[in-house]
Amino acid sequence: MFISSFTQISNIVIAIEACALIAAALSGFIEARKKRLDIVSTFIVGFSSAFGGGTMRDILLDRRPFYWVMHENYAILVFIMALIAPFLIRISSKWINALLYTSIDAIGLSLFTISGTSIALSMGSPPFAAIILGVVSAVFGGIIRDILLNQIPYVLKNNTPYISCAFVGACLYVLLHRFNILNADTIHLLIATMVIFILRMLSWHFNIRLPKNI
Amino acid sequence: MFISSFTQISNIVIAIEACALIAAALSGFIEARKKRLDIVSTFIVGFSSAFGGGTMRDILLDRRPFYWVMHENYAILVFIMALIAPFLIRISSKWINALLYTSIDAIGLSLFTISGTSIALSMGSPPFAAIILGVVSAVFGGIIRDILLNQIPYVLKNNTPYISCAFVGACLYVLLHRFNILNADTIHLLIATMVIFILRMLSWHFNIRLPKNI
Amino acid sequence: MFISSFTQISNIVIAIEACALIAAALSGFIEARKKRLDIVSTFIVGFSSAFGGGTMRDILLDRRPFYWVMHENYAILVFIMALIAPFLIRISSKWINALLYTSIDAIGLSLFTISGTSIALSMGSPPFAAIILGVVSAVFGGIIRDILLNQIPYVLKNNTPYISCAFVGACLYVLLHRFNILNADTIHLLIATMVIFILRMLSWHFNIRLPKNI
Repeated sequence: MFISSFTQISNIVIAIEACALIAAALSGFIEARKKRLDIVSTFIVGFSSAFGGGTMRDILLDRRPFYWVMHENYAILVFIMALIAPFLIRISSKWINALLYTSIDAIGLSLFTISGTSIALSMGSPPFAAIILGVVSAVFGGIIRDILLNQIPYVLKNNTPYISCAFVGACLYVLLHRFNILNADTIHLLIATMVIFILRMLSWHFNIRLPKNI
Repeated sequence: MFISSFTQISNIVIAIEACALIAAALSGFIEARKKRLDIVSTFIVGFSSAFGGGTMRDILLDRRPFYWVMHENYAILVFIMALIAPFLIRISSKWINALLYTSIDAIGLSLFTISGTSIALSMGSPPFAAIILGVVSAVFGGIIRDILLNQIPYVLKNNTPYISCAFVGACLYVLLHRFNILNADTIHLLIATMVIFILRMLSWHFNIRLPKNI
Repeated sequence: MFISSFTQISNIVIAIEACALIAAALSGFIEARKKRLDIVSTFIVGFSSAFGGGTMRDILLDRRPFYWVMHENYAILVFIMALIAPFLIRISSKWINALLYTSIDAIGLSLFTISGTSIALSMGSPPFAAIILGVVSAVFGGIIRDILLNQIPYVLKNNTPYISCAFVGACLYVLLHRFNILNADTIHLLIATMVIFILRMLSWHFNIRLPKNI
C-alpha cells in the first residue's frame, strides 16, 4: 500500500523499512538483556517489538494477512538475529552511537506512522481515527515490549515528544491528503514522513520535554 | 443497537453515555497524573480507559467500525480533555465528590455491561459467552489503563464487588431476554441496567467486600 | 480441526484437552491467590489463563467462534472451579505433585502448540507464521495471566526450555506435514505432539537451562 505509492523509489523504502524493523527488534533485545532473559524469550520480545505495532493496526482494521505472515523473511531474520543477540548488542553498542540509533528509530517512527495513517484512510477510516491508527502502528510495538517486560511503556513514561511527533505528522498528512493540497499523494506521504523525522530529531537534539500532567 | 432499543429515550441515553465515557477518560487522567505522565501519554491512557472495553468487545465479536471510529467526536473530545487534564482534575476534585464520581462510574458500568451483553446476544453468542462479553465491555478499559501504567488492574486487586455487579446484572438480562419474561426487551434492558447500578451503589455505600481466595 | 484428525481416538483427546484447560485455569487460580485476589477476579485470571492462548490465536487468524464460545461448558466449568478455588488449590496441592502437574501442563503445551500450528497451516499460513501461531496458542494464556497480575510472564522470565520445546515440535510438525513424510497427517500430529511432551518432561527432569542473553 505504502510501498506501492512509492514504486519509483520502492527499493530504497524496502531497505529503510528493513532497517527500521531491525532497529525495533534490537531495542527489544537490549531491553530483554536488562531483564536477563534467555535466547527464546529474547526472540519473543524482539518479535513483539518489531511487529507488534503493525499487527495491532491490522487487528483494529480487520486486515489480513499480517506483515510478518506476508513477509516471512523478516520474521525469520528477527529469529536469526535473536540467536546472535548478545553478539549484535555488543557490535551495535560499539558501532551504533546514539545519533545513528535515534535516526534509524526516527525513520521507523515516521514510516510506520504515515503508512498506518495512509492504510487506515484507504480503508475508509475517518480522519481522527486514521491518525490514531497511524500512531498505534508506530508506537504499539514498543508498548507491548515494555508490557511483556513488566515496565511502564518507555514512550508513555518519558516526557519526550515521541508520540507527539507521530501525532503531528499524521495530522499533517491527513490535512494534505484531505484537501489534496499538492495534487500528488506520493508527495504528501513524503512530506509528512519527513516532517515526523525532522521533528523527532530536533526534539532529541534540543532535548525538548513535554509539560507533565500536574 | 442498545441505543436503538431505547429510541423513546435515546437523547437521555446519549447524554448518559457521554458522561460515562468522560468519567472513564477522567479516571485515566487521574491515574496518569499519579505516574507523572506528560500530556500526550495522558491522552493515550485516557483514550484506552474510555474506549478500551468497547474496542476489545468488538475485536472479540469481529465487529467493525469501533465506537471511536463511528463517533469520532467522542475521540476528539477525549483529546481536548487531555489537553486540559490538569485543569479538569482540579475542577473535578473540587466539584465531583466521591458519591457523584461513583454514581457516574456505576452508570457507565451498568450501561456498558448490558449493551455489551445485548450486542453479543444479537450477534448470536450463546448466553454465558454473552455475559462474559458484557463484563469485558464494561471493565476492560480500566484493565488496559492499569496494564499501561504497570499496576495490577484496580478491578482485580480491590475486593469490592465491581465485576460481580456487572456479572449478576448480565446474568439477569440474559435470563429475562431468553425467556422473554416481560415481553418487551426494552424493559429487560432497563431493569438489568438499573439492577447493576443499584447493586454497585449499595455495595459501595455499605463497603461490602468479597471473600478472598485463600 | 485437531480433534477431527483424531476421530479414532477423539474421546481420549477431548478428555486430555479438558485436563489441560483445567490445569491452565488452576495455574491462574494459584497465581491469583498469591496476589490475594477475590473470587471474581480469580475467575477472570483463571479464564484468561485457560482460554487466552486460543483466543489470541483465533484473533490473529480472524477465526470465529472462539473455543469458549463454541464449547460454553468449559467456560462454565472454569467459573464453577473459581467458586471453589481455595478448596481446589488445597486438594491439588495434596494430591497433585510436581510430576503430575508438570505432566498435565506439558500435555497442554504439546496439544495446543500442534493444534495451533495445524489450524494455522490449514488456513493458509506460511510455515514460519504457523509455527509462531502454534507457540502463541500454547503460551499466550500464561502470558496474559501474568500481565494481569503485573509480573513478568513466567515463560519469559524463567530460562527453562518451555517455549523452545513448543517451537521445536512445531517446526518438526511443519516439516513432516510439508514433505508429507509419513503419508498420514494423523501420524505427523501424534509424533510432533509427543516430541514436545517428551522434550518438556526431559528438560524438566534434568533441569536444563537455556543460555541467557548476556
